[in-house]
Amino acid sequence: MPTVSPSHRDLLENRATVAFATVGADGTPQVTAIWAMLDGDVVRTSLTKARQKYRNLAAHPQVTLFVIDPANPYRTLEIRAIAEVTEDPDLVFLRRLLAHYGTDLESFPGPTQDRVVITLNPTRVVENG
Amino acid sequence: MPTVSPSHRDLLENRATVAFATVGADGTPQVTAIWAMLDGDVVRTSLTKARQKYRNLAAHPQVTLFVIDPANPYRTLEIRAIAEVTEDPDLVFLRRLLAHYGTDLESFPGPTQDRVVITLNPTRVVENG
Repeated sequence: MPTVSPSHRDLLENRATVAFATVGADGTPQVTAIWAMLDGDVVRTSLTKARQKYRNLAAHPQVTLFVIDPANPYRTLEIRAIAEVTEDPDLVFLRRLLAHYGTDLESFPGPTQDRVVITLNPTRVVENG
Repeated sequence: MPTVSPSHRDLLENRATVAFATVGADGTPQVTAIWAMLDGDVVRTSLTKARQKYRNLAAHPQVTLFVIDPANPYRTLEIRAIAEVTEDPDLVFLRRLLAHYGTDLESFPGPTQDRVVITLNPTRVVENG
């Protein structure tokens, strides 16, 4: 499995909001801003089943995460991946993700029902800069 | 045709590098960093025919441009579009795009052969923040 090099791991460790691309039923990419974190060699994020991007990846698991270094637009990280869905009934992962971003469940304004963990298993990693 | 609101046009007018998603032959999104500019109600960028993203959009014209405001990650602009390809044999458009980003052809390190204009005709515009 391709992995993120030490040179580019900071782009996923600095609490940045990153771009997440899925593909809709008509073939159009949907790109949204998400929080995500490295967990060993995979990337994980948390979604609710109510979101369009969840429905997209459940039907079409090829997805891509993309980060541009805010300090240097020539430095980028693209992770193409196969998305894998697991339940998060006790919000154990959501709590971890929020802690990574310096917050917690009590301060989180988003929905906590029907929360799933999305694990991105990289198929290709492209690093620039 | 959906258009970008005055409230979010700055995200494409401030010389930011933006994320551009195409879909490859196997259905995996490719996301790369590009320069692009508003031209009336469409967005235009310049590519060479040698790039993977060109081959992707020539075969699958549904593409998406995505910008996160570097000053406020909750402020985003997503433009889903149909890509249209036209030739740029005299590099008239490439010169305009470079001028928009404060540079010129003489300083441009990229290839100038087989250059095409990609016009993104919006099918949906999603503005947050």
